[in-house]
Amino acid sequence: MRVFTEERNWAQFHDPKSLVLALVGEVGEVAELFQWLPADKALDLAHEDPLRTRAAEELADVLTYLVRLADVLDIDLAKAAFDKLQNSSARFPPEDFHGQAPARS
Amino acid sequence: MRVFTEERNWAQFHDPKSLVLALVGEVGEVAELFQWLPADKALDLAHEDPLRTRAAEELADVLTYLVRLADVLDIDLAKAAFDKLQNSSARFPPEDFHGQAPARS
Amino acid sequence: MRVFTEERNWAQFHDPKSLVLALVGEVGEVAELFQWLPADKALDLAHEDPLRTRAAEELADVLTYLVRLADVLDIDLAKAAFDKLQNSSARFPPEDFHGQAPARS
Amino acid sequence: MRVFTEERNWAQFHDPKSLVLALVGEVGEVAELFQWLPADKALDLAHEDPLRTRAAEELADVLTYLVRLADVLDIDLAKAAFDKLQNSSARFPPEDFHGQAPARS
Repeated sequence: MRVFTEERNWAQFHDPKSLVLALVGEVGEVAELFQWLPADKALDLAHEDPLRTRAAEELADVLTYLVRLADVLDIDLAKAAFDKLQNSSARFPPEDFHGQAPARS
Repeated sequence: MRVFTEERNWAQFHDPKSLVLALVGEVGEVAELFQWLPADKALDLAHEDPLRTRAAEELADVLTYLVRLADVLDIDLAKAAFDKLQNSSARFPPEDFHGQAPARS
Repeated sequence: MRVFTEERNWAQFHDPKSLVLALVGEVGEVAELFQWLPADKALDLAHEDPLRTRAAEELADVLTYLVRLADVLDIDLAKAAFDKLQNSSARFPPEDFHGQAPARS
Repeated sequence: MRVFTEERNWAQFHDPKSLVLALVGEVGEVAELFQWLPADKALDLAHEDPLRTRAAEELADVLTYLVRLADVLDIDLAKAAFDKLQNSSARFPPEDFHGQAPARS
């Protein structure tokens, strides 16, 4: 993504707010793929084409902008994810949250 | 993320539509971190704490749900991203798009 | 919202990209309220507190930023919505789309 | 929107999670319109076509799904917005927050 950006001289567009908006746009496209599917059939439908290919493309776009945003911000994304998962493991002990989604409020 | 989910018996919550909503929630938290920053100062501010640490945590959350969604959908996310980037490289030849953002309409 | 903004001298923060990010943040909070609810129970749960009150607050926040964004862009939001609905009525004739969600691709 | 939905027998698709995803999709389209615009030129560009017309259409779509979601949830959206704004007025006294964006953390 860094090379792709430099070859086109697009780094000038990649300030943080613009990249977050691009990320939002791609997540919106993922949402559009799934919005009207019956919740209990979405997984089966997503395992077959045409949805399978389309979902892969849109998730790829999300990852691409996420990685680019992390690069611009000088964040080690893999390390951040491992750290966060370790932190979440401590916050939500399996014995206390077994089969229970953490409440959002 | 797969182990984390299984240890808590949370796979039951991870149907595609729910995971897309969780992804949206995390992207929303990234947006909130940057929304009121002056565009031309956002990068410098993000390179310093407290924003640096907060941004890393929220990008980590986005990655975590993105990877989980890809896992549930049986999508090879890294391969999908490489394929998409190769496709984008062909669609946007550097000589035709040098310094020019592709128009959205 | 216009008065609220002027009283606090916050118009300086309300450029279009910042307001879109604020809108995204609020939509993300709506998503978080619903993400882990079983799809077939979400409506009943949303008709009762605490979710009822929380959903009203978050939808209010979405409307607030949407209206503010329209104001800044000098868009007559109600007129735009009526026009769009009329346009959609023509694009999706009831007899052709009865009980059939328009496909997204 | 209620009539539009009933004429097409689309109420079956309008459970809360699906409508939130549709709202996300439309907000994503708004984000795509603005993502690569220079922050300090976005407002001027949005006051002229083609962006002016496109922005009106996408904001209209956001409002349409927001109103539909509120209808399904039996929320009085205008009242909720007035209540929230009154609440925000109390939380952010003009004298304490003059020219100062509330910090997000």
